[in-house]
Amino acid sequence: KRIRDYGVGIGVLRPGQYNAITDVPGVRVGHVTLIKGDSIRTGVTAILPHSGNLFQEKVPAAIHVGNGFGKLAGSTQVKELGNLETPIILTNTLSVPTAVNAVIGYTLHQKGNETVRSVNAVVGETNDGYLNDIRGRHVSETDVLQAISKAKTGAVPEGNVGAGTGAICFGFKGGIGTSSRILPKKLGGYTIGVLVQTNFGGVLQIAGVDVDKQLDRYSETLKYSADGSCMMVVLTDAPLDARNLERLAKRAMMGLAKTGGIASNGSGDYVIAVSAAEECRIPYESENPIQTVPTLRNEAMTPLFLATIEATEEAILNSLFAAETMIGRDGHTIEALPKKKVLEMLQAAHKMD
Amino acid sequence: KRIRDYGVGIGVLRPGQYNAITDVPGVRVGHVTLIKGDSIRTGVTAILPHSGNLFQEKVPAAIHVGNGFGKLAGSTQVKELGNLETPIILTNTLSVPTAVNAVIGYTLHQKGNETVRSVNAVVGETNDGYLNDIRGRHVSETDVLQAISKAKTGAVPEGNVGAGTGAICFGFKGGIGTSSRILPKKLGGYTIGVLVQTNFGGVLQIAGVDVDKQLDRYSETLKYSADGSCMMVVLTDAPLDARNLERLAKRAMMGLAKTGGIASNGSGDYVIAVSAAEECRIPYESENPIQTVPTLRNEAMTPLFLATIEATEEAILNSLFAAETMIGRDGHTIEALPKKKVLEMLQAAHKMD
Amino acid sequence: KRIRDYGVGIGVLRPGQYNAITDVPGVRVGHVTLIKGDSIRTGVTAILPHSGNLFQEKVPAAIHVGNGFGKLAGSTQVKELGNLETPIILTNTLSVPTAVNAVIGYTLHQKGNETVRSVNAVVGETNDGYLNDIRGRHVSETDVLQAISKAKTGAVPEGNVGAGTGAICFGFKGGIGTSSRILPKKLGGYTIGVLVQTNFGGVLQIAGVDVDKQLDRYSETLKYSADGSCMMVVLTDAPLDARNLERLAKRAMMGLAKTGGIASNGSGDYVIAVSAAEECRIPYESENPIQTVPTLRNEAMTPLFLATIEATEEAILNSLFAAETMIGRDGHTIEALPKKKVLEMLQAAHKMD
Amino acid sequence: KRIRDYGVGIGVLRPGQYNAITDVPGVRVGHVTLIKGDSIRTGVTAILPHSGNLFQEKVPAAIHVGNGFGKLAGSTQVKELGNLETPIILTNTLSVPTAVNAVIGYTLHQKGNETVRSVNAVVGETNDGYLNDIRGRHVSETDVLQAISKAKTGAVPEGNVGAGTGAICFGFKGGIGTSSRILPKKLGGYTIGVLVQTNFGGVLQIAGVDVDKQLDRYSETLKYSADGSCMMVVLTDAPLDARNLERLAKRAMMGLAKTGGIASNGSGDYVIAVSAAEECRIPYESENPIQTVPTLRNEAMTPLFLATIEATEEAILNSLFAAETMIGRDGHTIEALPKKKVLEMLQAAHKMD
Repeated sequence: KRIRDYGVGIGVLRPGQYNAITDVPGVRVGHVTLIKGDSIRTGVTAILPHSGNLFQEKVPAAIHVGNGFGKLAGSTQVKELGNLETPIILTNTLSVPTAVNAVIGYTLHQKGNETVRSVNAVVGETNDGYLNDIRGRHVSETDVLQAISKAKTGAVPEGNVGAGTGAICFGFKGGIGTSSRILPKKLGGYTIGVLVQTNFGGVLQIAGVDVDKQLDRYSETLKYSADGSCMMVVLTDAPLDARNLERLAKRAMMGLAKTGGIASNGSGDYVIAVSAAEECRIPYESENPIQTVPTLRNEAMTPLFLATIEATEEAILNSLFAAETMIGRDGHTIEALPKKKVLEMLQAAHKMD
Repeated sequence: KRIRDYGVGIGVLRPGQYNAITDVPGVRVGHVTLIKGDSIRTGVTAILPHSGNLFQEKVPAAIHVGNGFGKLAGSTQVKELGNLETPIILTNTLSVPTAVNAVIGYTLHQKGNETVRSVNAVVGETNDGYLNDIRGRHVSETDVLQAISKAKTGAVPEGNVGAGTGAICFGFKGGIGTSSRILPKKLGGYTIGVLVQTNFGGVLQIAGVDVDKQLDRYSETLKYSADGSCMMVVLTDAPLDARNLERLAKRAMMGLAKTGGIASNGSGDYVIAVSAAEECRIPYESENPIQTVPTLRNEAMTPLFLATIEATEEAILNSLFAAETMIGRDGHTIEALPKKKVLEMLQAAHKMD
Repeated sequence: KRIRDYGVGIGVLRPGQYNAITDVPGVRVGHVTLIKGDSIRTGVTAILPHSGNLFQEKVPAAIHVGNGFGKLAGSTQVKELGNLETPIILTNTLSVPTAVNAVIGYTLHQKGNETVRSVNAVVGETNDGYLNDIRGRHVSETDVLQAISKAKTGAVPEGNVGAGTGAICFGFKGGIGTSSRILPKKLGGYTIGVLVQTNFGGVLQIAGVDVDKQLDRYSETLKYSADGSCMMVVLTDAPLDARNLERLAKRAMMGLAKTGGIASNGSGDYVIAVSAAEECRIPYESENPIQTVPTLRNEAMTPLFLATIEATEEAILNSLFAAETMIGRDGHTIEALPKKKVLEMLQAAHKMD
Repeated sequence: KRIRDYGVGIGVLRPGQYNAITDVPGVRVGHVTLIKGDSIRTGVTAILPHSGNLFQEKVPAAIHVGNGFGKLAGSTQVKELGNLETPIILTNTLSVPTAVNAVIGYTLHQKGNETVRSVNAVVGETNDGYLNDIRGRHVSETDVLQAISKAKTGAVPEGNVGAGTGAICFGFKGGIGTSSRILPKKLGGYTIGVLVQTNFGGVLQIAGVDVDKQLDRYSETLKYSADGSCMMVVLTDAPLDARNLERLAKRAMMGLAKTGGIASNGSGDYVIAVSAAEECRIPYESENPIQTVPTLRNEAMTPLFLATIEATEEAILNSLFAAETMIGRDGHTIEALPKKKVLEMLQAAHKMD
């Protein structure tokens, strides 16, 4: 069960059908989960903004660096050109180049890309080295390609799956989480969908309840390392240009903050924001040097900011609620969030309807 | 009474003696409050990192732009050179140039600055135009100079004072707020002090309690405008260089997020972070082209990040608790936070010790 | 005579009718020159992207900071919102707040702006304190308003006028310069216009000829201070969004480089880039939250980059050719570029057709 | 022969012993050149700031993005933490992930790094797809490791070597080039060394002489594509922190500008600036949370800016003078710079002593 299933509402806006990034029309997600032997606990998650050839039909995009202790690939070209031309891949820190290689291969071999000689793969990561033998670099290009080919619409598996397999969040088992928000019609009716890979720390709060404080997990020093990372992917069907997508991306960090995340020194916190609006696609080549595109005006952004904050917070909490206790490398064990205790706290704080 | 006086603790770190920005040794704050007739509701707040000649003894500094719908003066030079050379002034949007002029005059006429011909004044603002006749530009250079000369150490007046006189926060009366945190000795024992000028919106939460939701102040649309701005000033005695001060500054936005702020489109959310550490002063002129300075290593930043987040959240809440109902321009009235109701909510959520 | 009048062509693209920023349709420039007594040598230059109410009909804009030792006002809002809402004003360093105040007043009092309570004035500066009694702050708001009201299309006075009155460039008298380029039809036929306020240093080259080296003005150390600043304003009628305007702005620094400028530590080198294309105007208020705007595709930017580089280089050279020897504060004298010698050098290098 | 050997001096500062990046003490460069069959024309260049374990003894670093149409890996962590922890690798666009993988492996297996689980490899690239079968991705991890292990001090091979093997510059054969400058003693006596991988376009000028114009290679449109990229690596023994290294990096673009480069839309122009000063090394781990480091004051940067501009310009020209005509993929032929003609032009312009 997800946190919302317990009657805990995050924020004031309503989620979409799946309460997932896939509520944004056309968006697909695929996971490959690698759990092998004692010490392989990793995986790959692919997010596809649309079903066509992304290189030929690029999408407006921006990347915000919350805290840049991370190895995300592809950010400078996204910033310069304002677009994304590949699926977004999430995996572990040391497997980023493998994923980039796979995405290059995927793109080179797509129909229509026969003469393409430049590909800007966007690949994010978090470090699962406590549970996973990360130095072994066990993710293969095939795994990445499979995550892409398995990507589908509808409900998204959460927790110990895909790139979240070995993730640790606030000292508990983290992983993949997702959530969405639909704006009221008069605010545009747009959908915001967020997917996160949660591997970070801080002082945990759930729906405003001081979980870590009540569990006495913080005293003079953080009892667990606050380091780690959080990858956040924000999709929307609102027609946004790169500038406003960058502003949107910055708000995801505010959602992270509401869970008690602090973007610690060692955290690689990145937000990738993409508009999947069909009318905003950017053809790779065009006879016409001018493109006439509808874009949302600045002052219409505010509700989208709120939606992004809410969906990011809830996506992180969903990752914690879905992830299960895991034993990995060298017998390292990370417990799942103690849901029973947490629910009692939420109950006591009148957070459950 | 401040929120902490009701037994509500924000975060896990302890505040300093005054729970104020002035807990950072040497830091002084001065207010000039302008409440005149029916429609003048504005003022000036000055923050001085140290008591010497700031132009001759500059301090490491950084400015982070959370959302740049604002008129803050001085940011590009601070970024380029990594230092601050004047007092920090806060006032209303349209009085920024008056304040800059005053700071230039102040600096030109300081003893030792007789040949100075370039001054980078740092002046922030929020828009108090709903309660204040902002178009009348009623702040004078004298007001600014007075705020500087009145600046002192010790407890800092909060609420409807200085630059916070006409501020509105979450639709309630906002204003000036401050708070501080002291790190445990083994984490360096440093002090973080934050002062805020709160004039922004979102969906109010206090200590994690959904105040706006419980007050039904949000439905299909935000019932009040979420626009406005928040100026945040972060001081510390930790020896930080400009790069790590910029990272620190980014965390203040995470504290703002925890109050329900969303950095709406129309918000000018800026964070000015300064190290007041004596050993880090940057002399204006020096025989020696090399300066040998102690600086904190990256990995020691994490507790300072947490302290900044906590102190910013509490400073914002302090501004709401201190500000009182105000009637201003055209009879516009902004109610104070309904403390009684809020305290009941906090009680019910077991947030009061 | 301007450099081109001597048969020296800069670059490969052709200039417009006036070889001035005013070749961009609708753009107007106004100067107020203050030369009074022994020591007032300063002024104001206003650049208006169009003739309407700029606040009500904003224009896409970006600001690039080449080197941020400067006090330019207005950059953070331009970056956040991607637009400009006032005339651009250039003046001396310590008169920036006076100019901001004047622009605020100008905007508040424009017809249609009766309820406006927030104005983002963009004001740039260079430091004319060697020739001018800058500490006296002799520019008045009236001077600024006059520069705006006097602004006109057509040929633009250069040299010791307006904001360039007291400027020093490569140790010679600098000032205002301007130039333009027209793209060939098949590259879009767009116009790029540049206006500069030249007050910087380096090792002077003119049309690639090593003037400073030949004049032996450089030996072990730069014989004059390389500090100072350069304000560059780039206007175009190409339909560009803020992202591509920022890219355009960066290229002006490359034009500056070709004159031997080095963006010294003490230089405030800023580029303000604006699209004056009518179809790109951004109404202050709109019923429709969506704006459908034509924008140039990324790959069509390259010729505009070249045009910006060429026009910036030539604008700087024009300022040097136009400026005349000036005696100012404390009898300080700055010689004009020794045109005769320079032309001989250009001749010898076969740079004159 | 290099351009300087013909008596053509670039700028006013003197080069070091080798006029190469290796004039910075301790810096080493290694090339692996891959010329196989008809269509493999690529390679790898490695630059090592010092001879120790770079991960354990990191160096202050910054990366500036001149134009971000490129796939450089590692920039966000360098920006966040202000340091570099691996050798710098240059290669072709589609081989970046292979190089990252190699650098990860190299670092994981270095003595002392047995427990390292996070590596930020910095890998730059240009696109050699016209001459090279870039889609074949012929660079192997072994090639990368070999470039590292072969790295040495002293003279650096230029032209069609290493990562410059298949490069095209201004439509002529480009490649690797390098140059250096030594500041006069009284300006600090520091060394600046630059290495470039030249694969970009514009309107070629050599020592200020309009080569492309005289060769009539530009008319209505650029006769060759101006796209491509330029990687620039700047090393110095001056004790600089990351902020001032970023400022230094920006100046390399000004050197590029002086050769006629325009940073076209399709160009990936990146500058990596590193201080190799021994006293500035950043130990990976330290008992002491405070590091006391000498750093150069802002105002001492100006001569280093000039040195960077000069060395970058000359490094680019050296790449053109060294590169030889190459036939590659599909019989594509790129001619070397017509040195004879160019030297005649330089002679006529009195550029040769």
